[in-house]
Amino acid sequence: MEADGQKYAADISSIKEAHERIKPYVHKTPVLTSESLNSISGRSLFFKCECFQKGGAFKFRGACNAVLSLDAEQAAKGVATHSSGNHAAALSLAAKIQGIPAYIVVPKGAPKCKVDNVIRYGGTVIWSESTMSSREKVASKVLQETGSVLIHPYNNGRVISGQGTVALELLEQIQEIDTIIVPISGGGLISGVALAAKSIKPSIRIIAAEPKGADDAAQSKAAGRIITLPVTNTIADGLRASLGDLTWPVVRDLVDDVVILEDVEIIKAMRMCLEILKVSVEPSGAIGLAAVLSESFRSNPSWKDCKNIGVVLSGGNVDLGSLCDSFQSSK
Amino acid sequence: MEADGQKYAADISSIKEAHERIKPYVHKTPVLTSESLNSISGRSLFFKCECFQKGGAFKFRGACNAVLSLDAEQAAKGVATHSSGNHAAALSLAAKIQGIPAYIVVPKGAPKCKVDNVIRYGGTVIWSESTMSSREKVASKVLQETGSVLIHPYNNGRVISGQGTVALELLEQIQEIDTIIVPISGGGLISGVALAAKSIKPSIRIIAAEPKGADDAAQSKAAGRIITLPVTNTIADGLRASLGDLTWPVVRDLVDDVVILEDVEIIKAMRMCLEILKVSVEPSGAIGLAAVLSESFRSNPSWKDCKNIGVVLSGGNVDLGSLCDSFQSSK
Repeated sequence: MEADGQKYAADISSIKEAHERIKPYVHKTPVLTSESLNSISGRSLFFKCECFQKGGAFKFRGACNAVLSLDAEQAAKGVATHSSGNHAAALSLAAKIQGIPAYIVVPKGAPKCKVDNVIRYGGTVIWSESTMSSREKVASKVLQETGSVLIHPYNNGRVISGQGTVALELLEQIQEIDTIIVPISGGGLISGVALAAKSIKPSIRIIAAEPKGADDAAQSKAAGRIITLPVTNTIADGLRASLGDLTWPVVRDLVDDVVILEDVEIIKAMRMCLEILKVSVEPSGAIGLAAVLSESFRSNPSWKDCKNIGVVLSGGNVDLGSLCDSFQSSK
Repeated sequence: MEADGQKYAADISSIKEAHERIKPYVHKTPVLTSESLNSISGRSLFFKCECFQKGGAFKFRGACNAVLSLDAEQAAKGVATHSSGNHAAALSLAAKIQGIPAYIVVPKGAPKCKVDNVIRYGGTVIWSESTMSSREKVASKVLQETGSVLIHPYNNGRVISGQGTVALELLEQIQEIDTIIVPISGGGLISGVALAAKSIKPSIRIIAAEPKGADDAAQSKAAGRIITLPVTNTIADGLRASLGDLTWPVVRDLVDDVVILEDVEIIKAMRMCLEILKVSVEPSGAIGLAAVLSESFRSNPSWKDCKNIGVVLSGGNVDLGSLCDSFQSSK
């Protein structure tokens, strides 16, 4: 897409094409509302429940679009990625639907429940050491040996286009939305959402929600270039990645603000999702609600007129034991 | 409704009228599906998520219909009930919407979170001792002093008609449903659902799910008359009531079977709702999933051809502490 001389990795056409392509396979997730949460936040909130998506997170949209876009020759050799998170399971599921192999390089020490998901969806698990260099080394060996196509979790135009379908659906479901709050990690989801939403409704505000212990997006926007953190520390295990060269330009140009949240605020929001909305949301997924309720958002005069806010609950894959532990320790 | 010489307290017309009346106030709750749960159960399951209803349970439909059906003179004096459960909160909320008082007699020892809900929705709490005789005595004093109208939680035609709107919505959302599984307690929900569903689709099967420690409906159907249990013992705190004279004829005539579940099966289903569907469902609300997965349902040749099953997840009001405790103790 050409805009101010910039090219982005996706645009409204590629997102609409992705929607047509993946529609038969993805859930059109419902939008929930709660008068209690409206009254607590002082806004009208519309929760887009991607935790109900197949595989338990929005990741299936992008993975599905990437897999379905392969030509027959590429597809035959399968797809690969290195990830211990929701993208690994989503890619396995997308490959299963197409009947092609998925090779997933998983670092030792990855959470059992996420590895179980990969296996359940028929992905082939290849173990690596937990360091990034080992992951990349093993992955490149797998690519070489199998001839499979690497599907990056976010730095990929097809993946960004797939994630953008969240916004297409949301704005079709609730026309009056004036703001969308989206968790930010590598930037695949928010890039797709921003490109779709600002094309449909140029006045819409796109706000990122980021944990304090992994605030590289906020730092990057302040610095005007991609900042990578040497260490991250947050309960939101899905929000530790850094921006890529395809997501950064979109985040730089189209994301209006980044709200930074403490882990304790994220846990509180997760608890409200469960107790008030009756929805199980993982920490990375609940951060958008935490942002709406945060003092820094509420007191910012720029966001006073955000009245109808779409909040993307991006995923629901949380281990029940950790959930109970985190509630107990935050009492 | 006349059927085999029997009159029922509601019929498809009163249910459709209720639907028109309450539509502006209730959530049209979404229907969720899960390929994992389809594969585990060997059927196509359609989860009607009444846990997302206002007040966290289907109860708001009946309470709302009852309150909105009062004439101005009756309404002015308010409504009353004695309950420590979801009906109390639902009635308070319905009264609040109409701007009329709700007097709720609450037995001492009622769960704090449910009393909090009543207060949050503006109901006036009047305490009684925990015995049924004290509850009734206090309630009758309240009725006398205030001139308010008693709204029974289930033995009331308007309440039954309101609950029946669950089936109207479900059959509009998913036409191919051939069976609906509904939790049974006093019988208000299942009576409304059975009357609506069998009128729209006479071939549909209506199956009740009941906890073993409160199996009065199964015993009543076997005996051909209302059986009241002296003691009940189940984790499903919403399913301890006995059938009333308005719900019994419908349960007797239109409910095709009662599946009885152990508490451990209910807890397991509650856990699957949370981990697989990502939905927080209280024990009484998860019992329908437990029924579909139970050996007694799976091995019963009469239900072999139940292919597309609506499962009503009736409520989601569960205290997070008890939730974590019950999962820990059932490990």
